[in-house]
Amino acid sequence: MRIATVQHEGRSLAVAVSEDGRQVTPLAGHDSVQALLESGEAPREADAAPIPADRVTFLAPLPVPRRNVMCLGLNYADHAQESMAAKGRDWKLPEAPVVFTKATTSVTGPYADVRVDPRVTEQLDWEVELGVVIGRGGRHIPQARALEHVFGYTVVNDLSARDLQFRHKQFFLGKSMDGSCPMGPWITTADAVPDPQALRLTCRVNGDLKQDGDTRQMVFSIAETIATLSSVMTLQPGDMIATGTPAGVGFARTPPEYLQPGDVVECEIEGLGALRNRMVGP
Amino acid sequence: MRIATVQHEGRSLAVAVSEDGRQVTPLAGHDSVQALLESGEAPREADAAPIPADRVTFLAPLPVPRRNVMCLGLNYADHAQESMAAKGRDWKLPEAPVVFTKATTSVTGPYADVRVDPRVTEQLDWEVELGVVIGRGGRHIPQARALEHVFGYTVVNDLSARDLQFRHKQFFLGKSMDGSCPMGPWITTADAVPDPQALRLTCRVNGDLKQDGDTRQMVFSIAETIATLSSVMTLQPGDMIATGTPAGVGFARTPPEYLQPGDVVECEIEGLGALRNRMVGP
Repeated sequence: MRIATVQHEGRSLAVAVSEDGRQVTPLAGHDSVQALLESGEAPREADAAPIPADRVTFLAPLPVPRRNVMCLGLNYADHAQESMAAKGRDWKLPEAPVVFTKATTSVTGPYADVRVDPRVTEQLDWEVELGVVIGRGGRHIPQARALEHVFGYTVVNDLSARDLQFRHKQFFLGKSMDGSCPMGPWITTADAVPDPQALRLTCRVNGDLKQDGDTRQMVFSIAETIATLSSVMTLQPGDMIATGTPAGVGFARTPPEYLQPGDVVECEIEGLGALRNRMVGP
Repeated sequence: MRIATVQHEGRSLAVAVSEDGRQVTPLAGHDSVQALLESGEAPREADAAPIPADRVTFLAPLPVPRRNVMCLGLNYADHAQESMAAKGRDWKLPEAPVVFTKATTSVTGPYADVRVDPRVTEQLDWEVELGVVIGRGGRHIPQARALEHVFGYTVVNDLSARDLQFRHKQFFLGKSMDGSCPMGPWITTADAVPDPQALRLTCRVNGDLKQDGDTRQMVFSIAETIATLSSVMTLQPGDMIATGTPAGVGFARTPPEYLQPGDVVECEIEGLGALRNRMVGP
């Protein structure tokens, strides 16, 4: 099942998206995806007329998460290597998950315009990532049972201002610009994703393939990540985990490439759909 | 005025605390401090009987912040120096604010017990910090007007698991253990703090003075920090900023000192009150 948040006639609705993507049907019993997740109930469609998808605007599935999006850094070997090489450093795999956060206000819709403001950054970069949405929360979740806590999966573009990210040392600020976390277009429920560690993920900029990876290549698997996070802190329904990006980001290219107004970034994950965001001037 | 959140007869209440701290009076019109902040209204007491302070339990003023607590690292020169020395590195002042976050679930009350679990960390450390509570949100807030966006000030203990903090590279996980962000006991409204950059802040462990600093020593002032954060992202009512800690933390001592079950940590800021948290076993 595909669960989305859409705007329709001025209201925000939690909906199920049809297989062909052509229509959406409001969910029964819950106004928001967050409320659905907190209820612990299985999503089901209301007894209501479907709405043509071209009559709604897709928002992020969790438009205002209850806390910051948690993100893994350097979680694909090839990306760890290209990042360290770009900084002129020897590279090695991280020994433990590198976790930072993106501010809630960075979250934006799957097809939203993203403002590129040279007063804020001149080095905006793309990062396609598999997003994991926690359903049932918990503490000290064993790795073997971790995937039972996943409600579903989505696509995240962890847009990154490299100048800010490196100037401020800790990654938070360079990852938290307004609009720097396109997400969606929907959450595919876990039962519909046979193996989340075997999904191709790609990023195209103006149609050119920039990133082409596979979630098999993660250094720390989804289950390991959930176990590690929950060993430290209580996970909650609606927590979002962006699981890192494969090689091919802009700052590690020769010469480096950064996003400019007019560029269109498409992030796609096999079976989960695609984000398509246009960069616009300030 | 001092604004707190207390538990009374099973309910959570937003209250004003009397000058002598002996009684609290519910606020008019708002159930929670977050709702008060979002309303933009000035706090005022309800026409209700005061409640003796010993009949309530003080919670964190914002018990469940709407997003992660934003924290400055290395924002006092003497602490930057001791930290780098402890890691055997040359030290220099940060050139830009170092910002990381603590998970919402780390927030706990000013007098709450804090669980120390050796399965999670064997290097739990103290950090007294001035907490800034944003009232009016905004983007691109100029430094000269930044303090107009501050609702008030509070005391934060940015408890830190040094082993996790350094093992995971980015600080988030080592700063996000459940209960690792005691806060309060109340928010002192900005009008009652003549100069937030001239406040003594101390941390005592079992009565021994460990940290003794002054907010004059900040590398990046409160106003600079608000200007920097809001240059990147939209600040919102209820955002919490912990502004860094002065020298005297445990991991930089010779030999290093870490908190153990039974230890009592008291963090106090001149005019803003004191936190008193006991460490307890798992």
